[in-house]
Amino acid sequence: MCDEISPNIAKEISNNVDNFLFDCDGVLWNANEVIPGSLETVKGLKALGKRVFYITNNSTKTRAEYAEKCVKLGFPASEEEIVCTSYISALYLHNMNFQGKIYVVGNPSMGEELDRFDLKHTGIGPDPPDDNQAGLQVVSGLTLDPEIKCVLVGFDKYISYPKMMKAASYARQKDCIFLATNEDTHLPMDVPFVIPGTGTIVASVKVPARREPLVMGKPETNMFRCLQKAHNLDPARCMMVGDSCHTDISMATVSGMQSLLVLTGVSTLSNVDTYKASGDPTQATYVPTYYANKLGLLRCNTDISMATNCGMQSLLVLTGVSTLSDVETYKASGDPTQATYVPTYYANKLGQLGKLLGFNIP
Amino acid sequence: MCDEISPNIAKEISNNVDNFLFDCDGVLWNANEVIPGSLETVKGLKALGKRVFYITNNSTKTRAEYAEKCVKLGFPASEEEIVCTSYISALYLHNMNFQGKIYVVGNPSMGEELDRFDLKHTGIGPDPPDDNQAGLQVVSGLTLDPEIKCVLVGFDKYISYPKMMKAASYARQKDCIFLATNEDTHLPMDVPFVIPGTGTIVASVKVPARREPLVMGKPETNMFRCLQKAHNLDPARCMMVGDSCHTDISMATVSGMQSLLVLTGVSTLSNVDTYKASGDPTQATYVPTYYANKLGLLRCNTDISMATNCGMQSLLVLTGVSTLSDVETYKASGDPTQATYVPTYYANKLGQLGKLLGFNIP
Repeated sequence: MCDEISPNIAKEISNNVDNFLFDCDGVLWNANEVIPGSLETVKGLKALGKRVFYITNNSTKTRAEYAEKCVKLGFPASEEEIVCTSYISALYLHNMNFQGKIYVVGNPSMGEELDRFDLKHTGIGPDPPDDNQAGLQVVSGLTLDPEIKCVLVGFDKYISYPKMMKAASYARQKDCIFLATNEDTHLPMDVPFVIPGTGTIVASVKVPARREPLVMGKPETNMFRCLQKAHNLDPARCMMVGDSCHTDISMATVSGMQSLLVLTGVSTLSNVDTYKASGDPTQATYVPTYYANKLGLLRCNTDISMATNCGMQSLLVLTGVSTLSDVETYKASGDPTQATYVPTYYANKLGQLGKLLGFNIP
Repeated sequence: MCDEISPNIAKEISNNVDNFLFDCDGVLWNANEVIPGSLETVKGLKALGKRVFYITNNSTKTRAEYAEKCVKLGFPASEEEIVCTSYISALYLHNMNFQGKIYVVGNPSMGEELDRFDLKHTGIGPDPPDDNQAGLQVVSGLTLDPEIKCVLVGFDKYISYPKMMKAASYARQKDCIFLATNEDTHLPMDVPFVIPGTGTIVASVKVPARREPLVMGKPETNMFRCLQKAHNLDPARCMMVGDSCHTDISMATVSGMQSLLVLTGVSTLSNVDTYKASGDPTQATYVPTYYANKLGLLRCNTDISMATNCGMQSLLVLTGVSTLSDVETYKASGDPTQATYVPTYYANKLGQLGKLLGFNIP
């Protein structure tokens, strides 16, 4: 279990998997920068006739907005290929024929997805504390709306004490549904700050409510179940590709999918080793079927390796997936498979070859 | 272990205990209403020469403000007898000779206690999110103050996303001290709402910081250790009186004090039975030495019981500790000790007797 991806494995995956489910941040891009090779890989899979879905815990965009972001970065995506938690939460309530009103600790995109299913909601937007009241006295002006039978918590930059009080008061009622889009504690960004994630907002409601919400996002399996139902997917022919063992890989394992961990985001190989060694059944779900240093390696290595295996010479251009330091690693590995990844030549860009051949390149 | 308080036990306690540590809310008063019998009990203990301390997890008042509240409700109290978490947090940092600046998620009273020890701090007051920035973009305008080497979290009605981000960013730094006044999830009040407690505010910082704070308040023992040091107390001759098994009683057990659980607040006798039966070492600390239906019973029952035991007739007046329904319970118990609590007569108030005796009472 958990082999590094290789040309043979890539071929196997290509034969056995019809549907690729991609986590986005840390896999396809970091912040707004595409991770080299990801674009080509997704496009390549689509060209092979594979179905591609984008599965994100993000609750701050509608499906339409998220598809727009994908397209802007170059990834082919339609609304139907997006599974985000703002949408899944609304779909969940729609599917259960929910008739009451929803108290939302969230953002306008969550409101839009609820509106599309004609679900009544309130709470989105600022709700600051009254300067003239001490914390506890907020209660004196508070009346609970008897129509509210659901609390839905997602990312909310306007989280406030009055919101915590109201959400916890509703969630504490036994007949009130309590949903959270996801529980990511923080957003993995390359900044010297901590960016609190939706899990922080959820904690500020579930701690006073003394109740656990039903979580819509990964690692819970609800997102996959919705997708499976909509597209009649066979989990055995699905592969989840993600950068987080706790969320992406765990959801895949529990849902019966194969999984590929890419090391461009949250989790590391040493994390995987720890999970393997733990003997703990929960941690066992964190171990991926395969891993790759980056998503591009699902198709990378294949060019040079194929050439080597066929006895051809090869030229690696460094404008794409592989780097010179990758090559150094392959050389140093002493591993016969990795040895096939070492090119005969390399060039900083293909134009170099053209120039050397005397072509007219500016 | 865990006997109901009786005249004999009360006598024993009176002989063996010099220092009484009272939790306040749920023991002495509920909200702003004194629990019948509490006032007389505290005054009675003081009259016997016992030392009395008020030990509260409350972080929204200075010691001076809390003493004022006690006095207003009729309880004799000076600043030196108050141990509250706003004060203890400042004392803790003072005792360790802390020299940096403190980022406070808290309230003005916490600031006052820090000021009294000349501790530098920032962060108290509103810090709302910028309407023009998406959640994540807050980061673009954020610079961390290198002087800040401590994060202190207490009750803060102005808790906000920017505060969570800043506090978590500082607390994430390895050389930053991370303190919380207390972790009470909610405030036990007789309202149909949930009033989020300081534990809610603390959760919104510790979840993104992925780090546990050092907690100043109960059930941690820091408050008692400070008091012990200041007044040279022998824990064996101290009794903690509280309404919460998780906080008051646990702190007492771990500190080597005796404890009395009063059933006028958070915990119930059935809770105690569960803790006893659990066989779990942590839950064992929740089991009090004694319990009483209300604090007044520490001295109540004694009047009537003494009379009965001495062969006197007795008149119970219902303006104080005991109620008619208490008497019904004693009668129905079939227990010989409780039988001694049943008075010969009762009166709604003493004036009734006077009137019946023909005294001139308006």
